[in-house]
Amino acid sequence: MIATRFTERFGLAQPIALAPMAHVAGTELASAVSNAGALGLVGGGYAGTQGPERRAADELARCPPGRCGIGFITWALALDPAQLARALALRPACVFLSFGDPRPFAAEIHAAGVPLVCQIQDLVQLEAALAAGAAVVVAQGTEAGGHGARRATLPLVPEVADRLRERAPDTLLLAAGGIADGRGLAAALLLGADGAVIGTRFWAAREALTADAAIARGLAASGDETVRTAAIDALRGVPWPAEYSFRVLRNDLTAAWAGREAEAERQRGTLAAAYRAARERDDYAVAAAVAGEAIGLCSERESAATLVARIGAEAADLLRRGATLDFRKR
Amino acid sequence: MIATRFTERFGLAQPIALAPMAHVAGTELASAVSNAGALGLVGGGYAGTQGPERRAADELARCPPGRCGIGFITWALALDPAQLARALALRPACVFLSFGDPRPFAAEIHAAGVPLVCQIQDLVQLEAALAAGAAVVVAQGTEAGGHGARRATLPLVPEVADRLRERAPDTLLLAAGGIADGRGLAAALLLGADGAVIGTRFWAAREALTADAAIARGLAASGDETVRTAAIDALRGVPWPAEYSFRVLRNDLTAAWAGREAEAERQRGTLAAAYRAARERDDYAVAAAVAGEAIGLCSERESAATLVARIGAEAADLLRRGATLDFRKR
Repeated sequence: MIATRFTERFGLAQPIALAPMAHVAGTELASAVSNAGALGLVGGGYAGTQGPERRAADELARCPPGRCGIGFITWALALDPAQLARALALRPACVFLSFGDPRPFAAEIHAAGVPLVCQIQDLVQLEAALAAGAAVVVAQGTEAGGHGARRATLPLVPEVADRLRERAPDTLLLAAGGIADGRGLAAALLLGADGAVIGTRFWAAREALTADAAIARGLAASGDETVRTAAIDALRGVPWPAEYSFRVLRNDLTAAWAGREAEAERQRGTLAAAYRAARERDDYAVAAAVAGEAIGLCSERESAATLVARIGAEAADLLRRGATLDFRKR
Repeated sequence: MIATRFTERFGLAQPIALAPMAHVAGTELASAVSNAGALGLVGGGYAGTQGPERRAADELARCPPGRCGIGFITWALALDPAQLARALALRPACVFLSFGDPRPFAAEIHAAGVPLVCQIQDLVQLEAALAAGAAVVVAQGTEAGGHGARRATLPLVPEVADRLRERAPDTLLLAAGGIADGRGLAAALLLGADGAVIGTRFWAAREALTADAAIARGLAASGDETVRTAAIDALRGVPWPAEYSFRVLRNDLTAAWAGREAEAERQRGTLAAAYRAARERDDYAVAAAVAGEAIGLCSERESAATLVARIGAEAADLLRRGATLDFRKR
């Protein structure tokens, strides 16, 4: 069994956290991941500020008490900060904030005695995470599915690790983006992370809220078949800050619009109704099936328990064999 | 000492290859890397087709006989294919082709008994590399400095490893992009690579042809301070195929043009003279200082021998400690 500061501090059997994916990580997936010995998180998404959503607090309330965390899109939470108090009242295992300034929420989270997890995409954001007193920093690379930015996981993680060692040695570090199996987890640990946040691999798990039609597309895709673009949010009129873009499976919409961000921006919101309708009828030629490059490492829909156990065992096996320093047999 | 199929097949002490960087990897750097027990390569660049360059064959001729390889930009080599015969006559340790279709050159390279190394940026390119009978495939992620494309190293390497295991199990795999220290090398090996191609870290080596002013900028930069854009090649009028872009340190030129690729394309070549003049006067506010995201892991100018030895020793140490499965002490 792999022991890290992350497994120790959160009482886990595996150094793995579920990415709190909006519309994907509900009660069932978060609970299954936690029950398998990793850290399950419910995706709080836009905190209800961008239209109807499953209420994250309701989802969290049905998880094993105290064993699951909750994630929010920080700029959306800022539009309805009362969502945070509802979540904290349920005593989550952590609050995981991504995409925006965590500092306005830090005092409330610390006062509740709940660990603050801050996801960052570059070193500028690391400063805000440290100022917020993050217990855990998640360094997310551009290969991740969903929203993100430009730095890649492999060089970002050791650079963040070096800064944390100097500036905040008790702050844990998780790697996110591109990790879907034991190879990725083992690599993340040697790069200096205390564990890995896994999204895409769990997006295709049996317990995920992901639509079957989206998963079917994903499991058939290679990692080449994703694209990162800001055009989708512009066209559907979701007010994402300019520094973030959206990685999704390529489809008719991205074929038409990826790379035409400026033009999409001028047409902001014009596709909102059509996009919503496409989602409602599970039409993933238009609506986004949200997956990262690691989708190319996923070929089956499996249970979260199977995935957690296999990823952990694969990583342990690779680490044990790596110590022979003999890689001649592949 | 780390043993892989790559060290075995090329008679190396470390599973490390020098990226054949144009205008950076000349006789002195390639020889120093080979003398340190890794695989040195001379950067053949544009094969002289885009203006005066140091002649790669002349550089290779001064390296330790048979111990260094040579790299070419494939689409440029296609403009003057006779450059290949000149290189092969010197019996290089390998010919390393990047950025273009390797198939037209494969027969000549195989006939000379020289191993063909094909650098790829996605799975479509893997097909061409296999059809060309590559002895080694280099999977290069978007975080790499210089020219490249969109996939990231961390998820690309295991996906390519899976395909090679099924389709061409004797073909070696190297990881490129984002690797500058023992952490990156150890991670690459656990991801399924037989070794790592390192560029940026050697770009800043004592023996590199890199201008002092460029290195000074690089060593002061974090990994956030690079950007990938196709605008520079458009403005300076170098005919790169549309699928490739250029990762460089941010400067005045990228501040003005990154993200405005379509407009730069409409002004193709208009900055050619100004760009060349900026290069000649070492003005890296305009000319590109070419570095990848791993520049954030580089803080000193060191000798290639020091770098090879340290990266190899660090990787071995991490791999040995990883086998305890106990990462609680950082």
